[in-house]
Amino acid sequence: MSELRRDPIGGRWVIVDTDSPRKPEDFEHEPHTWRGGTCPFCYGNEALTPPEIEAIRDSSTQPNTPGWQVRVVPNKFPALQIEGDLDRKGLGIYDMSNGIGAHEVIVETPYHNKDIPDLLNEEIENIISMSCRRALDLIKDKRFKYILLFKNYGPAAGASLEHPHTQIIALPMVPKNVMEEIKGAQNYFEYRERCIFCDIVKQEIQDKERVLLENKYFLAFCPFVSRFPFEIWIIPKKHNSYFCHMPTGEIPDLAAILKDTLTKIKRVFASPAYNFIVHSSSVNGDDGGVEYYHWHIELMPKLTRVAGFEWGSGFYVVPTPPELAAKYLKEK
Amino acid sequence: MSELRRDPIGGRWVIVDTDSPRKPEDFEHEPHTWRGGTCPFCYGNEALTPPEIEAIRDSSTQPNTPGWQVRVVPNKFPALQIEGDLDRKGLGIYDMSNGIGAHEVIVETPYHNKDIPDLLNEEIENIISMSCRRALDLIKDKRFKYILLFKNYGPAAGASLEHPHTQIIALPMVPKNVMEEIKGAQNYFEYRERCIFCDIVKQEIQDKERVLLENKYFLAFCPFVSRFPFEIWIIPKKHNSYFCHMPTGEIPDLAAILKDTLTKIKRVFASPAYNFIVHSSSVNGDDGGVEYYHWHIELMPKLTRVAGFEWGSGFYVVPTPPELAAKYLKEK
Repeated sequence: MSELRRDPIGGRWVIVDTDSPRKPEDFEHEPHTWRGGTCPFCYGNEALTPPEIEAIRDSSTQPNTPGWQVRVVPNKFPALQIEGDLDRKGLGIYDMSNGIGAHEVIVETPYHNKDIPDLLNEEIENIISMSCRRALDLIKDKRFKYILLFKNYGPAAGASLEHPHTQIIALPMVPKNVMEEIKGAQNYFEYRERCIFCDIVKQEIQDKERVLLENKYFLAFCPFVSRFPFEIWIIPKKHNSYFCHMPTGEIPDLAAILKDTLTKIKRVFASPAYNFIVHSSSVNGDDGGVEYYHWHIELMPKLTRVAGFEWGSGFYVVPTPPELAAKYLKEK
Repeated sequence: MSELRRDPIGGRWVIVDTDSPRKPEDFEHEPHTWRGGTCPFCYGNEALTPPEIEAIRDSSTQPNTPGWQVRVVPNKFPALQIEGDLDRKGLGIYDMSNGIGAHEVIVETPYHNKDIPDLLNEEIENIISMSCRRALDLIKDKRFKYILLFKNYGPAAGASLEHPHTQIIALPMVPKNVMEEIKGAQNYFEYRERCIFCDIVKQEIQDKERVLLENKYFLAFCPFVSRFPFEIWIIPKKHNSYFCHMPTGEIPDLAAILKDTLTKIKRVFASPAYNFIVHSSSVNGDDGGVEYYHWHIELMPKLTRVAGFEWGSGFYVVPTPPELAAKYLKEK
């Protein structure tokens, strides 16, 4: 019989197929098919992007020329734009406002064909440091209530450019999913006076069977209530609400665990498309859940298509139990 | 500049690209690639499915033989199974239970290659009547709290079989998305003493620009806060909480508007994959929101891939404003 499992944070139920679980080889592999053309993120093509916002580059080089290791530029086709007023208004029963925000791209490396598993640890540390710096800078704009950091890798995961990059979007309101997560964590805190994420970390370390990797500061595990097969969370073991407030001393451990996790996924699934999203607390509002919210990364290899049932209900069917997913990944 | 729009029911914000909206021809068309093999839903192959639960068939024919027009069978690979106890229990911080429920397939027609736009109105009426009958039957089992009716058409929408079919899942708990919709509608009702869906119907009929089709009992429109390009809602104009309580006299109008809507989508996008989901009130609980919840169909052609941003935030980027989508569809 399958199992129903309830997410203790948001209250979502999922169906886990413990009866006839899918093995890694049962998932169809969609090849990465990219559109051709000149890559705007490669060395020498800096003029093809809007002028750079910030970069880690050799001190002898000029902005918007080669010589950089990590480069941040505005998204050429931004979902939101930075100039203007929010101008929130009603429209009969509906509400709307102008599309104010920021949309930046962090080009992770000058190498077109190197994704995170192929980079040196120090190169990944640079990407993480830059992500924190950009978030801290965007938070200064009091119009922004949430900083969303995410990566789409591969066309099946929604990436339109092959060259490895991460995106940052600054939003003028806290997104619904995040708000629910914050509220769920708050409810738990009010009841137990403990952070629910800290409790999850403790239980996962104790249970062991869903843990993939662990180092001094971070834990990577397949969550008990995964929504997708082979979903992985990477979470700091010490309580911290904000990604961008990560102590510098923890960055090398995050770089290492991120690289090792993605390497395992790449080995098990022959370089599948994936998404990861950094969940961090809201900004420029009240206390931002400093006591009860705990930042983490949610990583999902793109192995299945989401169908009507999931869209309609938010009730996910998970074909591979996380315990089994962790086992397959650990072996690689 | 793009627009931010807020869903008045669930509070979700979406970004609508009013700046450089995508036209129908800008969406890539993914061909339907089906696995071969014998179709278990075709005439003569009745033995390939579990024994039929119910069918509309010629009175001279026997169950599990040809001669049917609509045929309901248990899903051969059910997400949930009907026998057993829920046996809800804790597991440290987590909650779980056995996977109890029902999972049925409504084979819509004996014709392998005819989807809804190709059927006669009376044939579609049969599908609708049968869906209501199955829901009413499943509700009798007091373990079930929600009856979910949905259709996946095309592999990109998650369908694994080509032969047109709808699925019914009876769930032992109300799914999160539905619960939020019910609560949002309840909040509005407490404030205004009116059904929010009834108010939306009124405003859409008055605004006109998002309306696609209208007949005596139903309205088809592209919602102001679409999450997907060319998303369409089909909603009864008269207040009613439950799909399966639809008055018999309204069924022909639903069949007609569903057929005409899907025909328009088929013309604009050359038969794309799509999902539709019937949103109806919860069952076997409290009052099920009889006063404030209003059943409807949410229909989504599968034109884009959902990327990390959407998964992470629940903040959707809609490349075609619903006003424009309605215009393109109306012309066809």
